[in-house]
Amino acid sequence: MLGSTHGTLTTDSRRARVIACGEQPGPAVHGRPAEVDDLDVGGRPLYTDVPDLDRFFRPETVAVIGASDTEGRPNTGVTRQLIDWADRVGARLHPVHPSRPAVFGIPCVASVAELPEQVDLAVLLVADPLPLIGQLAEVKVKFAVVFASGFAETGEEGAAAQERLAAAVAESGMRLLGPNTNLNAFSSFREDLDGPGIALITQSGHQGRPVFALQELGIRLTHWAPTGNEADLETADFLSWFAERPEVGAIACYLEGLKDGRSFLLAADRAARRKVPVVAVKVGRTETGARTAASHTGKLTGADTVVDAAMRQYGVIRVDGLDELQDTAALLARARPPRAEGVVVYSISGGTGAHFADLATEAGLSLPALSEAKQAELHQWIPEFLSVANPVDNGGHPVGDWRGRKIIDAILADPSVGVLICPVTGPFPPLSDRLVRDLVNAAEQTDKLVCVVWGSPVGTEPAYREVLLGSSRVATFRSVGNCITAVRAYLDHHRFVSGYRSPFDEAPRTPSPSFRKAQALMRPGQQLSEHAAKQLLRAYGIRVPREQLVTSAAAAVRAAGLVGYPVVMKASGARIAHKTELGLVKIGLTSASQVRDAYRELTDIARYEDVSLDGVLVCQMVERGVEMVVGTAHDELFGPTVTVGLGGVLVEVLRDTAVRVPPFGEEQARDMLGDLRGRALLDGVRGRPPADLDALVEVVLRVQRMAMELGDDLAELDINPLMVLPRGQGAVALDALVVCR
Amino acid sequence: MLGSTHGTLTTDSRRARVIACGEQPGPAVHGRPAEVDDLDVGGRPLYTDVPDLDRFFRPETVAVIGASDTEGRPNTGVTRQLIDWADRVGARLHPVHPSRPAVFGIPCVASVAELPEQVDLAVLLVADPLPLIGQLAEVKVKFAVVFASGFAETGEEGAAAQERLAAAVAESGMRLLGPNTNLNAFSSFREDLDGPGIALITQSGHQGRPVFALQELGIRLTHWAPTGNEADLETADFLSWFAERPEVGAIACYLEGLKDGRSFLLAADRAARRKVPVVAVKVGRTETGARTAASHTGKLTGADTVVDAAMRQYGVIRVDGLDELQDTAALLARARPPRAEGVVVYSISGGTGAHFADLATEAGLSLPALSEAKQAELHQWIPEFLSVANPVDNGGHPVGDWRGRKIIDAILADPSVGVLICPVTGPFPPLSDRLVRDLVNAAEQTDKLVCVVWGSPVGTEPAYREVLLGSSRVATFRSVGNCITAVRAYLDHHRFVSGYRSPFDEAPRTPSPSFRKAQALMRPGQQLSEHAAKQLLRAYGIRVPREQLVTSAAAAVRAAGLVGYPVVMKASGARIAHKTELGLVKIGLTSASQVRDAYRELTDIARYEDVSLDGVLVCQMVERGVEMVVGTAHDELFGPTVTVGLGGVLVEVLRDTAVRVPPFGEEQARDMLGDLRGRALLDGVRGRPPADLDALVEVVLRVQRMAMELGDDLAELDINPLMVLPRGQGAVALDALVVCR
Repeated sequence: MLGSTHGTLTTDSRRARVIACGEQPGPAVHGRPAEVDDLDVGGRPLYTDVPDLDRFFRPETVAVIGASDTEGRPNTGVTRQLIDWADRVGARLHPVHPSRPAVFGIPCVASVAELPEQVDLAVLLVADPLPLIGQLAEVKVKFAVVFASGFAETGEEGAAAQERLAAAVAESGMRLLGPNTNLNAFSSFREDLDGPGIALITQSGHQGRPVFALQELGIRLTHWAPTGNEADLETADFLSWFAERPEVGAIACYLEGLKDGRSFLLAADRAARRKVPVVAVKVGRTETGARTAASHTGKLTGADTVVDAAMRQYGVIRVDGLDELQDTAALLARARPPRAEGVVVYSISGGTGAHFADLATEAGLSLPALSEAKQAELHQWIPEFLSVANPVDNGGHPVGDWRGRKIIDAILADPSVGVLICPVTGPFPPLSDRLVRDLVNAAEQTDKLVCVVWGSPVGTEPAYREVLLGSSRVATFRSVGNCITAVRAYLDHHRFVSGYRSPFDEAPRTPSPSFRKAQALMRPGQQLSEHAAKQLLRAYGIRVPREQLVTSAAAAVRAAGLVGYPVVMKASGARIAHKTELGLVKIGLTSASQVRDAYRELTDIARYEDVSLDGVLVCQMVERGVEMVVGTAHDELFGPTVTVGLGGVLVEVLRDTAVRVPPFGEEQARDMLGDLRGRALLDGVRGRPPADLDALVEVVLRVQRMAMELGDDLAELDINPLMVLPRGQGAVALDALVVCR
Repeated sequence: MLGSTHGTLTTDSRRARVIACGEQPGPAVHGRPAEVDDLDVGGRPLYTDVPDLDRFFRPETVAVIGASDTEGRPNTGVTRQLIDWADRVGARLHPVHPSRPAVFGIPCVASVAELPEQVDLAVLLVADPLPLIGQLAEVKVKFAVVFASGFAETGEEGAAAQERLAAAVAESGMRLLGPNTNLNAFSSFREDLDGPGIALITQSGHQGRPVFALQELGIRLTHWAPTGNEADLETADFLSWFAERPEVGAIACYLEGLKDGRSFLLAADRAARRKVPVVAVKVGRTETGARTAASHTGKLTGADTVVDAAMRQYGVIRVDGLDELQDTAALLARARPPRAEGVVVYSISGGTGAHFADLATEAGLSLPALSEAKQAELHQWIPEFLSVANPVDNGGHPVGDWRGRKIIDAILADPSVGVLICPVTGPFPPLSDRLVRDLVNAAEQTDKLVCVVWGSPVGTEPAYREVLLGSSRVATFRSVGNCITAVRAYLDHHRFVSGYRSPFDEAPRTPSPSFRKAQALMRPGQQLSEHAAKQLLRAYGIRVPREQLVTSAAAAVRAAGLVGYPVVMKASGARIAHKTELGLVKIGLTSASQVRDAYRELTDIARYEDVSLDGVLVCQMVERGVEMVVGTAHDELFGPTVTVGLGGVLVEVLRDTAVRVPPFGEEQARDMLGDLRGRALLDGVRGRPPADLDALVEVVLRVQRMAMELGDDLAELDINPLMVLPRGQGAVALDALVVCR
């Protein structure tokens, strides 16, 4: 057994494990069985291997199946491009064609079986790749790329064809990119740029082109993985592999859907452990987008709020536009970790500084005032009447001479400053040329982040094209918004990874003692009665009110005595919805006679409404607290999720809830509360005491445990309301809905 | 009397009116008294004149006071620039200098008095302009521009100097731009661009430069008003005047503060009436921004939520970044009114279309599916398996030949389509060059809006520089976000102006019959008792519960009988805050004995807490409804405002309120409710009936009337809660706080 080591396992070791496990059934990743102790208690993987993709991106030998040099045929252009590329990267290329002696002068073989040597990469320019998979595996081809379309993106029939292809590939031991992919991976990358670069993963070739074009602005691109339909190799595989390459400074993704939610999270976890930033556009904010994207690639899009939360849990930076993707990935790839979190805005106009500071602060950046001493230092070069607290307004003139550089250096030398941002509204050569040159030179001599926003819409100015774009140390932006987004992502990323602890390391692998008790209470396909649902909660250590289930008025009075007045009485049965609306709840009963009357009334209503009861619950009344909702739901991408929300009108009208994907730890559970707009209610308003947050967090974690252990047997679990009592007094589940699958 | 005609009154007619009114006291605009029936009931103007600025922007004669040609002096550069500019616009320029015979070869006069002819515009390059104002007025100079700084932007002393300058100008009859302004108005505008252009107003020269630079991209700029400190001419003056120029297609503003809220709204109203779009950056979203901006120009920044609401009331489009300002103003200046509201996204990649559709829908654009017939038409040229519902994905190939133009024309011919947006991810010349050329040609032959998002970050491609920027009919963007913002603003603007009715036309000019009753209830400097506050509400026709103020237990019991059980009893006095917390409210009293006990308890608590009572209120109990809050507040820029919010925890925890600046009509009052996040509460949740919206709107309008009439005598007015009963049953003010000024 290899255990669940986290680290770089090669493709070969993965193969060995697969063989060791044989045909053992159980949850699987990529159609391959995983080992038992690689799984969490819910049967979901806690580990996936990183495929060794080195020979995919840098093959020594390439075969082109279906190569052509007949003018006008689409394969001809592709063949020509592959020959050029092989030439550039120094790979030997073998065209394969049943009837030609040569293609573009390169000798052809008639079939895969006749290839003169073992081949790293086979490019399949054929309409039906399926028959070739076995042949390629036989001659030990490592990777295949399939361009053909007409698979899952076209509907059911295509999806079935894709499944057949995936099955053949899984059996073959070969790895496959596609189908429905393209030449992007074999583009012409600029080799003259050094330092950390961007690795790009796209599920649509067109959408990657602006990122690829960044190279023309001097920003290095290291790899491009156009994943197509992901019949075998998927986004997660490239993400994991890129995260381990030293030349990759950031990974930029354009995603329309995911093949498997869990493998994406495991890959993001690997990137977070290695402190490699992942920046992603994920289509599907709206129904329209999700639908269109699904029809485009045939992948699962998932509920957007869940995708959003899952990404945040693993530090994936989600952005909207491709321009934000470019600007954020470029900054994160190249900037060194921040030495401090303070951002200073420096400008040659008070207006520009005020405007930038306004937008930056609104977006959550912290612009601390510089110290008195630092301000005094700056006033050596900047007139007294200008404000240099932050933003620093130099009034213009000082940047035209030797003082300009002094000011920049003085700001960067301040230990509270991590980022210097200089918005320049456009070319005013006597000032702006010298300013940007000083910034570029100063940036060469500091570890700190220097950003320039070049505000001119024109973009042909030499100060921009030559000086700013010529520097790999200054991050240059064309819009204030993108600069702020990128700087925020930069600070957030480094804060996140520096405190990152992988939830997979701490996820439970074996059932808790609660599990056996809980199993006995489950009723497949049924909704549990309120009483049974509360027993399930109690099995997991979640407090419920003192209560008894009774079937007579006399027993109700006895129960009330034991529970303690005042009491609440509720009809209890397996299928009662809208109890309150039907009048099936009586609160604040203070005497035996009220209890007796209530018993009669409840059973009368139940009879009248034709509701079948298993009895009447006599419950302790719990009043002083904040009503919350805690529950689980099932997401098509990520499986069971945990939700917490403010109860009452807040959750109903404002849908004020937060969601997380298990596994997650206490910190994320606390973080969920911060997501709630009505969070302040928990801190105490209108003179109420603050609520017992620790108890609430504990309930969230216990519900997570239920979600993981009972997992797919739970169709629905909702504690509503969970009464969170004042600090130190705990939380009590007053009602719960449990539906078994 | 000239009445309150809305229209173009020239400077001369305004002068005439000022003279007619003489020294009559009363609220004033620009320090000049306005006519009585130009005022609303609160004494605020309903009308301001448009100054005639023609000779300011196109003077025939210019004097430069303090002209210089001594190398190295700052005035020398400015003088040279003015000479060039006068030359270009054909104005005669007269340098004024006490001792020189000539400046740059142009004969000098020694003083203003010696100017050889009447002068339209005097540019003052002197440190202290005050002594010159009288002299300039004497020789009938129309306009002066003051560059000197050191006024309100520097603090109290400077503000006093600015007031002296403003007073001298007001007396002179001359109009003045500045102080603390610059040469922007006399920049070199491109004369070769035609069609409607952008007029620019900035409170910081630097911040206008990127907008000015749009000319290099082929977008016409018609004027630039750098308003500086606005001692006399202010943003509103330029806004009004620009709104009446036929060559102005849109007005772009960069604002840090406003000199006077009301005059800005009157100017925005004029633009809305004339259907001229106003796009504005307004600094002050955050405390940091507001503070920095205030120190920069010495203007009032106002509460940002109020500024935001006021702008929306008059259709001013507020944007954040200067790039958004540019892109939105350029689109609005040039695009013709929409023929339909439908937006179609057209792309050569399914991914690009899906992504754009997702972001556009999220931002609130409507992307209706094309009709079956239209889709069938498009499938003549686009393969069947691609979706052409909207977004229209052509798969690439059709744009490379004659089909490309057919597709574009077919989409534009659809009557449901008002806007065609084509995101292009970058240059792929065989397709993209032909695509943009087809789009440019098609745009020439349609009234509909055609937008292209050129996604490449490079921006030197000929398809972008030459073809797209060469067209005045295609709106070209460099980011998806800005395109969506601009298109949304375009559709919103035209929807807004087509239904616009000026609230100033309908604002009350004379006090309502309620006013006299209300005046008798006001107690200057005091907080009214709850009973008195409710009488004030009743005077304005706002329903309050049946109630009686009593001073004995026996009277309380009698009152309860009249009011009807159950009753609420509350301590009543002039200065009681936190009644509920102190136990000074008793609810749900159902019998004489409970009323008697309650009376005793309330008076006991009051004695114990040392609260002085004017009695105890016995009130009708009103339970079933939605608790709202309606009130007024005073804004430093706009005066009295009206606020509505959801009551209870929503207003306390989420601050879920909406605000409007009077005067506003019923439609805006309804619109306020739409701003509330918890709006759905009013529609009925948890089986509750929908609330009486009409009654709520009526209360909002009555509170507006109170705010306008009692205006500055009201320090505070809050109805909390206003219980809005089920539809058809009205709304009742259960409590109110009124503080007189």
